[in-house]
Amino acid sequence: MSLHTATTSAPVNIACIKYWGKRDTKLILPTNSSLSVTLDQDHLRSTTTSRADPSFEKDRLWLNGIEEEIKAGGRMATCIAEMKRLRKELVEEVDASAPKISGYFVHIASHNNFPTAAGLASSASGFAALTASLAALYALPCPPTTLSLIARQGSGSACRSLMGGFVAWNAGTDASGLDSHAVQIAPESHWPDIHALICVVSDAKKGTSSTSGMQRTVETSSLLQHRIKHVVPQRMTDISAAILARDFDRFAEITMADSNQFHAVALDTSPPIFYMNDVSRAIVAVIEEYNRIALLPENGGKRKAAYTYDAGPNAVIYAPAANIKEIINLIVHYFPQQDAFKDPFALFGTAGVGSGAVLAGFNVNVAKVAEVGAVKGLIHTRVGDGPRTLTEEESLLGTNGLPLKMAQK
Amino acid sequence: MSLHTATTSAPVNIACIKYWGKRDTKLILPTNSSLSVTLDQDHLRSTTTSRADPSFEKDRLWLNGIEEEIKAGGRMATCIAEMKRLRKELVEEVDASAPKISGYFVHIASHNNFPTAAGLASSASGFAALTASLAALYALPCPPTTLSLIARQGSGSACRSLMGGFVAWNAGTDASGLDSHAVQIAPESHWPDIHALICVVSDAKKGTSSTSGMQRTVETSSLLQHRIKHVVPQRMTDISAAILARDFDRFAEITMADSNQFHAVALDTSPPIFYMNDVSRAIVAVIEEYNRIALLPENGGKRKAAYTYDAGPNAVIYAPAANIKEIINLIVHYFPQQDAFKDPFALFGTAGVGSGAVLAGFNVNVAKVAEVGAVKGLIHTRVGDGPRTLTEEESLLGTNGLPLKMAQK
Repeated sequence: MSLHTATTSAPVNIACIKYWGKRDTKLILPTNSSLSVTLDQDHLRSTTTSRADPSFEKDRLWLNGIEEEIKAGGRMATCIAEMKRLRKELVEEVDASAPKISGYFVHIASHNNFPTAAGLASSASGFAALTASLAALYALPCPPTTLSLIARQGSGSACRSLMGGFVAWNAGTDASGLDSHAVQIAPESHWPDIHALICVVSDAKKGTSSTSGMQRTVETSSLLQHRIKHVVPQRMTDISAAILARDFDRFAEITMADSNQFHAVALDTSPPIFYMNDVSRAIVAVIEEYNRIALLPENGGKRKAAYTYDAGPNAVIYAPAANIKEIINLIVHYFPQQDAFKDPFALFGTAGVGSGAVLAGFNVNVAKVAEVGAVKGLIHTRVGDGPRTLTEEESLLGTNGLPLKMAQK
Repeated sequence: MSLHTATTSAPVNIACIKYWGKRDTKLILPTNSSLSVTLDQDHLRSTTTSRADPSFEKDRLWLNGIEEEIKAGGRMATCIAEMKRLRKELVEEVDASAPKISGYFVHIASHNNFPTAAGLASSASGFAALTASLAALYALPCPPTTLSLIARQGSGSACRSLMGGFVAWNAGTDASGLDSHAVQIAPESHWPDIHALICVVSDAKKGTSSTSGMQRTVETSSLLQHRIKHVVPQRMTDISAAILARDFDRFAEITMADSNQFHAVALDTSPPIFYMNDVSRAIVAVIEEYNRIALLPENGGKRKAAYTYDAGPNAVIYAPAANIKEIINLIVHYFPQQDAFKDPFALFGTAGVGSGAVLAGFNVNVAKVAEVGAVKGLIHTRVGDGPRTLTEEESLLGTNGLPLKMAQK
């Protein structure tokens, strides 16, 4: 067992105000600010163990048990080099008694507890876990904001996974990128009532990668510039206020509008980029109808759910906890499930969800009942905390410095 | 047989620069200018017979053999009243010998030669045929531009079907609407090489009507205002120049960008509006790949086709005549046809299209081969002329003033 090892986990985050477009592709500086909800690591997480040892012969990395090359000058190499630099400058050069481990090579093993096939972006939680794990290994005296500057250079949205709750990524204006970091708008304890239902949508076609797609939008969409300058700044202000006021109706209105606008600028790209498919569209129709009923004066006149779509067909539906059971019933009605719903909050009894249900007054014609498998699975989670430091029992690296679990071939 | 009768046909038009949004919903004044290609009436047309007779007891209308109510104050009533007014002011009050028929009631019968199920908007050709037929009945000394002011009040895009070739609809700025009319950018004889392939796409779900949809976009989309002010004016100038220069590459570039931007602002609407479905998206992918190959320097470096989508899932593919055979082969390969392709230009021999073909170098993975029926049919046509005055043999009204063909019940 090495003296110099640390294991941390980091959460997934799903944006309400979308990041799309870089003003600096090397430093990963965005064209606009963004804001996300950090999801609970009890359900979705990346876990990373980092170890520094004088016996190691090079930096090495294993993702889900498969060794990946650390390309010179690549994003992974940049993050590791930046963390070694911080160790040297902030620890070793300040405290003469601190072990000089910044010069050692590191071994890093990372694991996601959700399948890649789920179509959830693992780069955000992955780079956040990497950064948090190296920060723990190196005992850096840095707040999450500083670490977010490093994680951002691995994967832009990773910077938002270094904090729990409701997190903004300020675009910043400086060419150095030093003002382009995450800030916590409110911790998860401020509004723990925010739950999320992830609808994993089957997709026949591999979509455009977000890295190449967003730059094509920057180069060719005339609508993106308007979004950046005139739409997003106001939405950042408005949604932050909605979060602080725990105003779900307003939060939902802005979240849905911004998801739709992100997909609109993707479509305004040449060649156009489509991430949502017919199943995604049908989920939009179902949630819009659910809100139409909720917005009737006799029903309280407030939205009860908000859909949002990242660069893929999956829907994430945010809603107050009390509405989730109704929403699951609706989704299961329109998208019959192959497998039983895993019910982490025990909303349904032992009989399970069954075949779902629609509400009184619901216009059932807004969508057709899909074939089994159109929505491959449902994950119920909620707002959660930032990276967690784990114990040595949870290390992913064995005493030999190699992953304990290698991928099954 | 009445003395006062006229029969005309009018063409369908499909826009390259899209009309979406009204600044005056009563007069149908648009928020932006638009531009379309008039399609050949040999293939797609609305035919209308109008008759005025002192024995008629009220204005009556039959569409495809089914009588429709002419609602007081509605669009149809407005068009008929406007045409009667022009007869009175421009003919009867000017020429004392002219028959005083503006006070007679009219019977109008109209027929589309394409099925409603084809999903092609019939309101443009229908209102153009109505206006042209009444103009012939009333022997109005009006150029098409004047008539386009009337047709516009029936259905906005109808104003563009009063001329052949390449037709702009100038948005105008006057509250009266007198400067919001069609103008011919070039006649069909200027660029007869422009052909069109209409891909009729099956759709499970009835989309949002364009009348209600476009006003929702005006009220809720922040991107629409940018499109109106900063994008469309330049595109109108650029595509007009491309048409005059017969520059298909530039014409195609602008046409595709504007179709995508129209669907982008529809998506930026609250609730969002989707007209394209997964089959529409797959056709986009196929045409983008076809152009990617064409744009390679060794292949000439110019686009060979342009897709455009109106407020529905159907694709219209514009291309120079020489490319249409390749395009049909591509489409038939990805979208196997139930029925034999009707081949009005005799591109294929007696063996017909068969199962289609892809070109050398084509990345076949851009789309999956769809199930039979995903594209229900293909219509090959080309740029064509404006309304035609037909002979009495082609009248849709019998000597009794009633339609010759009533709808089969």
